[in-house]
Amino acid sequence: MKRVLILGGGFGGVYTALTLEKLLGDTKDVEIALVNRENYIVFQPMLPEVISGSIGLVDTITPIRRLCPRTNLYTRAVETIDLERRCITATAGFGSRMHSLTFDHLVIALGNVTSFTGQPGLMEHALPFKYLGDALAIRNRIIHVLEEADIEPDPEIRRALLTFVVAGGGFSGVEAVAEMNDFVRAAAKSFRHLDRREIRVVLLHSGSLILPELPSSLAQFAQRLLAKRGVELRSDTRLAGATADAALLEGGERITTRTLVSTVPAAPNPLVATLPVKKEHGRIVVDGHLEVPGQPGVWALGDCAWVIDAKTGEACPPTAQHATRQAAYLARNLVATLRGGAREAFSFKALGKMGSLGHRSAVADIMGVKISGFLAWWLWRTIYLMKLPGLDRKIRVATDWTLDLILPLDIVQLKTGPSMAVRREHFEPGMTICREGDRGDWLYVIVNGEVEVSRSVPGRGDVALNRLGPGECFGEIAMVREGPRNATVKSLSSVDVVAVDREAFGTLFSHLPALKGFVEALIQERLDQAPPSPH
Amino acid sequence: MKRVLILGGGFGGVYTALTLEKLLGDTKDVEIALVNRENYIVFQPMLPEVISGSIGLVDTITPIRRLCPRTNLYTRAVETIDLERRCITATAGFGSRMHSLTFDHLVIALGNVTSFTGQPGLMEHALPFKYLGDALAIRNRIIHVLEEADIEPDPEIRRALLTFVVAGGGFSGVEAVAEMNDFVRAAAKSFRHLDRREIRVVLLHSGSLILPELPSSLAQFAQRLLAKRGVELRSDTRLAGATADAALLEGGERITTRTLVSTVPAAPNPLVATLPVKKEHGRIVVDGHLEVPGQPGVWALGDCAWVIDAKTGEACPPTAQHATRQAAYLARNLVATLRGGAREAFSFKALGKMGSLGHRSAVADIMGVKISGFLAWWLWRTIYLMKLPGLDRKIRVATDWTLDLILPLDIVQLKTGPSMAVRREHFEPGMTICREGDRGDWLYVIVNGEVEVSRSVPGRGDVALNRLGPGECFGEIAMVREGPRNATVKSLSSVDVVAVDREAFGTLFSHLPALKGFVEALIQERLDQAPPSPH
Repeated sequence: MKRVLILGGGFGGVYTALTLEKLLGDTKDVEIALVNRENYIVFQPMLPEVISGSIGLVDTITPIRRLCPRTNLYTRAVETIDLERRCITATAGFGSRMHSLTFDHLVIALGNVTSFTGQPGLMEHALPFKYLGDALAIRNRIIHVLEEADIEPDPEIRRALLTFVVAGGGFSGVEAVAEMNDFVRAAAKSFRHLDRREIRVVLLHSGSLILPELPSSLAQFAQRLLAKRGVELRSDTRLAGATADAALLEGGERITTRTLVSTVPAAPNPLVATLPVKKEHGRIVVDGHLEVPGQPGVWALGDCAWVIDAKTGEACPPTAQHATRQAAYLARNLVATLRGGAREAFSFKALGKMGSLGHRSAVADIMGVKISGFLAWWLWRTIYLMKLPGLDRKIRVATDWTLDLILPLDIVQLKTGPSMAVRREHFEPGMTICREGDRGDWLYVIVNGEVEVSRSVPGRGDVALNRLGPGECFGEIAMVREGPRNATVKSLSSVDVVAVDREAFGTLFSHLPALKGFVEALIQERLDQAPPSPH
Repeated sequence: MKRVLILGGGFGGVYTALTLEKLLGDTKDVEIALVNRENYIVFQPMLPEVISGSIGLVDTITPIRRLCPRTNLYTRAVETIDLERRCITATAGFGSRMHSLTFDHLVIALGNVTSFTGQPGLMEHALPFKYLGDALAIRNRIIHVLEEADIEPDPEIRRALLTFVVAGGGFSGVEAVAEMNDFVRAAAKSFRHLDRREIRVVLLHSGSLILPELPSSLAQFAQRLLAKRGVELRSDTRLAGATADAALLEGGERITTRTLVSTVPAAPNPLVATLPVKKEHGRIVVDGHLEVPGQPGVWALGDCAWVIDAKTGEACPPTAQHATRQAAYLARNLVATLRGGAREAFSFKALGKMGSLGHRSAVADIMGVKISGFLAWWLWRTIYLMKLPGLDRKIRVATDWTLDLILPLDIVQLKTGPSMAVRREHFEPGMTICREGDRGDWLYVIVNGEVEVSRSVPGRGDVALNRLGPGECFGEIAMVREGPRNATVKSLSSVDVVAVDREAFGTLFSHLPALKGFVEALIQERLDQAPPSPH
């Protein structure tokens, strides 16, 4: 019995399994196994509509077990790949048992990952837009800021709450900003105190024209349409960093916002980086048959592979269309290797490109024909509905779209699970990290940078008390006493902190003697030093 | 301008706001404000169907802003209530600003909360079933254990994965166990390696007959039906505690399971406990007009109020039917107080009781008429669909039910957000907390109890190395070295621990010098003591 092991449950991995199932039929001598962190495949093109709620949360994802009934699915994350011993390890399930799987053939379809390295504050404060959970997080953030803006008296804070920034003018960014813009402006009607003129939706794009993959006439159509709907386009602008309440642009400009979505950063999967094989732009180089040279039985495809098209001689772009076609070639070549037979070299001409602009409009370039507006939108919906895997999903999405025409917009904020107990935050110089008199919900540990602690003294204004640096912490007194902050802390330089919430603090600090003693000594010392507090 | 402030967005609070809006019309001299943690009201009767997925996740909840368009909604949690100064404080939103609201009239509709105090291990390991998030968590757990069971070779572990225990034989427990049983048995068909005969679904009930609120003939019908569908009924059985892989029963019996749902424990809201007013069974005593005696302008209703029915002289049960009716009386009496007019004493005869048994069957006792089976199920769906607030929700749920008839069961596991970084765990004596050679994903701090550390030495078997007690920690070496566990740790007594995951550990321990030094010293000490490890 031979095992074909597929890593990754995106289009590349799942369609490889699907084609293998068809080609191998009911034969008992080959096992098809697939390892993926989730038990479903996400249909990316419809994710933007999850933000606006016009497609139900789970309707853009299809269970892999349903699509590939003869494949053994391991719902685990891959931890290590050992090409020499021909085995992989996967994370543990309940009870922490490590899982190891051997293979005869390995298909690497791990895609790429989101990475914010090198841009300060993005990891902490920007919302990525790649997975289903991201779409849900963006939706919840939008509803949350609208809720807050509705009851916020301070115009400065309200401005940050009602500004929405999306970075990246490719398909993903444009579709996200279009849906967000429609959703925010429609949802705001349900909030009694919101002035809709205060809403700002901004798209940042590093080039001069958005949607660089499309002919410029279509891109210009899209720009005009978005502008008409109220999206501010900032071309030739790059995002340089972020804080909790601002997007920082290259050149020093600062846009205050509580909702920053970044669609830009796709980096190679770190697992791929560990493999001792030749790479190009971080992607695994494969031959025309999608096998890794010098590694018989090891294959790669999709976004993590560097595939040269046999006809054009060019590298394939990382799109779902290509991954799906590559899967069919790969599966056929793999079966030819197992059973004997001729292999085929991969070649595929993309059928077209489409981008939805929301509100019944889209742009499409199909076999060289340029279409825009309602017709393109109709095509977009028809083609993607056909391509959505699984008949039941097709029916559900068609129903969602129908209901969406007649029912009002949904504004429930689905909070699931507890919020993070320990999180990182980034501050630029001169920002207030915590304010005297506010509620003390977090303890902060400085990772790098310097802060100043001050307190307002009647008749003397704000008096600086202390400076703190890396490894020191603040905010502990309000946590222990459950009272308001007794001091204000501001960043003097660019500052990174780790924030620990009340519950994690209570749990950790009351049971670990080293920490308990440390915090108690610290509090005593600070109280001895400090002038009497008005609180 | 007077403010009527309603605390709580359940049936009591929302229907009070609704009736006040109707009675007050467009008058400008009274503001209606409502504070609730979520921006929606949950329709509890349909929650069990969220577990099985036959109703869409967000379709059982209705946005409060839509239902009460003239009410000012504060999506915040209430922190303190000050009856003397007539103000409340609410938790902060973005930026930690504390929120304070004054009131002229206060309506307390805070309901009750889930509480597992006094039963060891339940807080850590039992799944409550009260909120929308709970239903989603149960659904995800079920799919997770099925995924794991499908690839688990050890029959002992598989038994725990495939056993599902529900504690509580009231409406909520029976409806939950019925839906879970249907869902598990149907979903298992999509898993290639699952033997459906290994599935066990158990209902624990402290009395001799489930559904004690119903006439015994209906309860017996329900018992027979559940038994026929494969639910094991354990009457006169109480849950005493839990560990990660077992339900502990009174009397010492142990049912191995990875899915324990407890529907029993409803405790008074801790905020209600802080109020200086008379209480009965933890509920606020009100007069016949639903006002709190001695506190003019303070009202209470629903599950947190002790209301005596004017006609029967008996206390009202904590049901949605009663809360809704009380809301109408309360709103009328409140307006009579504001505008002048006669107040009415509350009285209401419940129309009936219904419990769904899944699979097109139910039991109902409507105005004394007992109905069971398909007709009762049809009535159940019709009546609750009518009662579901909001026309758009009615259409969505009707659509869900229609699609559910024709489409296959959905088995996607919707994981949202990161898992907990710091969690508590409970172990009974003699359990393995971590095993040599396993992956080390957690650092443990002992809160109470004693553990034994041992290591296998070739030729000598397991050799005990050390005992650890409260305040001590273990698991740090595997965390720092990223290797497998180099020792096995077992509980000698009943043990509570705090577990810190790899990410929280990395974040906290590498930046807080007190912790870093502590861990480094500890590791050095342990390595010096220990015999050479085979790993």
